[in-house]
Amino acid sequence: MSRFQIIRHGLLVRGRARHFSSVSLADIDHFRTVLPPHAILTTLPTVATAPVAPAELDQYNRDWMGKYTGKATTVLKPRTTHEVSKIVKWCNEREIAVVPQGGNTGLVGGSVPLHDELILSLASMNNVRSFDPVSGILIADAGCILQSLTDYVAPYNHIMPIDLGAKGSCHIGGNVATNAGGLRLLRYGSLHGSVLGLEVVLPDGTVLDQLTSLRKDNTGYDLKQLFIGAEGTLGVITGVSLLTPPAPQASNNVILALPHFDNVQPLYRKVKRALSEILSAFEFIDRAAYDLAVKHGQGRALNPEDVEGAECFVLVETSGGRREHDEEKLTDLLAELLGAEKPLINTGVLSQSPAQFSSLWALREGVTEAVSKEGKAYKYDISIPLAHFKTVVDSTRKHLGVKGLLGDHAVKHVVGYGHVGDGNLHLNIVAAAYTDEIQDALEPFVYELVSSYRGSISAEHGIGAMKTHALHYSKDEVSIALMRKIKAIFDPRGIMNPGKVLE
Amino acid sequence: MSRFQIIRHGLLVRGRARHFSSVSLADIDHFRTVLPPHAILTTLPTVATAPVAPAELDQYNRDWMGKYTGKATTVLKPRTTHEVSKIVKWCNEREIAVVPQGGNTGLVGGSVPLHDELILSLASMNNVRSFDPVSGILIADAGCILQSLTDYVAPYNHIMPIDLGAKGSCHIGGNVATNAGGLRLLRYGSLHGSVLGLEVVLPDGTVLDQLTSLRKDNTGYDLKQLFIGAEGTLGVITGVSLLTPPAPQASNNVILALPHFDNVQPLYRKVKRALSEILSAFEFIDRAAYDLAVKHGQGRALNPEDVEGAECFVLVETSGGRREHDEEKLTDLLAELLGAEKPLINTGVLSQSPAQFSSLWALREGVTEAVSKEGKAYKYDISIPLAHFKTVVDSTRKHLGVKGLLGDHAVKHVVGYGHVGDGNLHLNIVAAAYTDEIQDALEPFVYELVSSYRGSISAEHGIGAMKTHALHYSKDEVSIALMRKIKAIFDPRGIMNPGKVLE
Repeated sequence: MSRFQIIRHGLLVRGRARHFSSVSLADIDHFRTVLPPHAILTTLPTVATAPVAPAELDQYNRDWMGKYTGKATTVLKPRTTHEVSKIVKWCNEREIAVVPQGGNTGLVGGSVPLHDELILSLASMNNVRSFDPVSGILIADAGCILQSLTDYVAPYNHIMPIDLGAKGSCHIGGNVATNAGGLRLLRYGSLHGSVLGLEVVLPDGTVLDQLTSLRKDNTGYDLKQLFIGAEGTLGVITGVSLLTPPAPQASNNVILALPHFDNVQPLYRKVKRALSEILSAFEFIDRAAYDLAVKHGQGRALNPEDVEGAECFVLVETSGGRREHDEEKLTDLLAELLGAEKPLINTGVLSQSPAQFSSLWALREGVTEAVSKEGKAYKYDISIPLAHFKTVVDSTRKHLGVKGLLGDHAVKHVVGYGHVGDGNLHLNIVAAAYTDEIQDALEPFVYELVSSYRGSISAEHGIGAMKTHALHYSKDEVSIALMRKIKAIFDPRGIMNPGKVLE
Repeated sequence: MSRFQIIRHGLLVRGRARHFSSVSLADIDHFRTVLPPHAILTTLPTVATAPVAPAELDQYNRDWMGKYTGKATTVLKPRTTHEVSKIVKWCNEREIAVVPQGGNTGLVGGSVPLHDELILSLASMNNVRSFDPVSGILIADAGCILQSLTDYVAPYNHIMPIDLGAKGSCHIGGNVATNAGGLRLLRYGSLHGSVLGLEVVLPDGTVLDQLTSLRKDNTGYDLKQLFIGAEGTLGVITGVSLLTPPAPQASNNVILALPHFDNVQPLYRKVKRALSEILSAFEFIDRAAYDLAVKHGQGRALNPEDVEGAECFVLVETSGGRREHDEEKLTDLLAELLGAEKPLINTGVLSQSPAQFSSLWALREGVTEAVSKEGKAYKYDISIPLAHFKTVVDSTRKHLGVKGLLGDHAVKHVVGYGHVGDGNLHLNIVAAAYTDEIQDALEPFVYELVSSYRGSISAEHGIGAMKTHALHYSKDEVSIALMRKIKAIFDPRGIMNPGKVLE
């Protein structure tokens, strides 16, 4: 190994400094035997090709929120599993840390380097390998963009089992690596159910080929499950086999204003019973979130008189096989709700056109944008039992009040919204500016609160680099110790996405 | 350890003899400090209590098919997770092999001892811990019987996400440990999606508590997935948290006779599109299976003229939220199918009453009973792409013919039936008697055939003791080596259900 220029940097792993090799010129020479020149982006002064300007690597080094910025000198873009294998094997032998990167749309800093790790972009592995229109089973390269896959299966009357805001950029491999949740989870379940098989390159270059197209296979431990949500810390996902559901033929929605939060639970039960298999979303917005959305022009506001005194709102969506059947179920439900002796709702508005359908969704989906227009947001993505949604929001607001941090000078709003059906609350604290004072007031307060309900400190966003220190609020010592052992099996040298998930 | 009477027996583990300790009188003395007398069944001559007759342990030692019989001297029936922990820890230290046992209804010999392992029955851990009627999340002891749980959630208008023939005896813990499939998989997906959390006692007595009631939790590796389908080889499942779906309000079914097998695929596509979210079963029966079912009085036969020349049959079931909507969809579908210019079906019979509904199901579900009435059955439970269902049945029949084994003297029928929607074919070879000649003709022939389609040699039954030698037909060396490493993490002394899953 003497011909390698050894540059080392420190990275804290398990509380002690862990040293990885930096990418050297000799490494680049080697990568040139594996990849064509255009698949190697490096700022290092190679002999063969001109180095790229550091700014050209910004899109790979910086995360979507602009919160984390790595110092990678080199981005590799393999086109095949075999190339990935050769690259990773080399890095493992050289102890070069590797960050697998998909669309780089994560929210917890999981897909960018913390130091000068090598970035392995899957962007050039973007072919559909097969689709069976009878079973609906799709096999695709990890670098396929979610929207492209949605478009690919649409002519066959199928949809992807996940849908999320970042669909125009995120990769299916990244979706699987982060166990993405999104808008369809209530209806189609988690990726642990929809993913049928994976192809994964392990750090030693071995290809774990479990890319079956079988719905059922009870032959030993279901290893692929470990990579779903491992955020690239165990290996590089290069191929995905998943079950795509038949496309619904019609979608409808309705927004309901509730006088009290306490009505949400009985309402959810009624709605589930009335809409049964066609219920595809049951989304919650508290009053503060609704007011913010309306203030910033997100969606069309309901009649102000109708929503006077409403404490919160619920958006219900149906997706089914026949429009007239779905509409009948939804209309009957609304009539029953409004005609009840002690109505659970103040008012309900049923969308009558595609434009109204979108407008109602905009009230819910626009909260995120409204929040960012209003100020700087501290965002928590938590799972807790539905019954405690309001308590968590109110307790946080009260806690900030006690600390003297409520008001235009500090925290302007504390809002709650999210996926009731999934028990997933988005708690947003909207402040005039990011300050240490607010940060210290919020953490570990929020994590401890979530932990007291046996909740999850990360329902769908993952751990990434952002929450490794807080993992213990949701997983006990036994679990974390086992995770470390699993990590050691797959990645004994710890080169895969170090500093993510596990500290 | 000198006070223990050491009796050892050999058990082949990974090709070499592995020695475990037998249960001794001193062990029984110890277990008496953990459990009350009635929770200890032993044939050993203890001082404190009279030993039970060996016959009393038969129901624990013998598997459901009567194919495997263990020689356990002792059955323990703990009531709490804490008791399980103390027992398992003791066994681990003493190197006593342990077989966790649920309802003992498995089909691959996974739940009975191969030698004189200790049997740990979960039958006395049978309490529902909690049920949330809003989210539908049920938390139950592992020893709860599936039917009891179905009955428990019924008044809340929920159902269990799985249903199978053995529901009156099987335990939810066993269902999870074997990743049971069953009749509802097409609609509600696999247990990898429905199970939200597990409580597992590891061999060293540690309790892995991941018994959350959260639908979403992205905080690290999803360890619980490893225990789903591990058949008790990694630890003892003591508690299960799972999502129960809302109960459908109506179910309908129809049986369709098809002139050619080639019509099954286009039919499946048409049916999926027409019935969409209310489709709950799409089951296949080939002509030979149908004729056997009719011969043995399983269900009411269709009009003989209508089914003349029919090569196979399909049973379609719907389950939905409103009967009239479902019936309209099904009637329209049938009219479209029968009115087509080139009909995919010869005839279709729609059930008009609960009795007819059951009778149509009996044609499909009765195949198993008809097969056992007709002769001795070699049963294969395989996953292969739907397109090859017929080829596999025909190839097997032809192969037996070439070997001179077709006819009343040897193999009387080769029949195929199963879950088309899941790609799961039950291939049954019905013979006059079990013979080595037939066995040798079938294996590895069938496994190699399945392997050539990248299929699974065990779609839903598992590996157990029966198929460890055949695991490599569905999992490659890389996968099996990783499974062994996973096993070594959780169960370094190999005491958990030895000889099952991994050789």
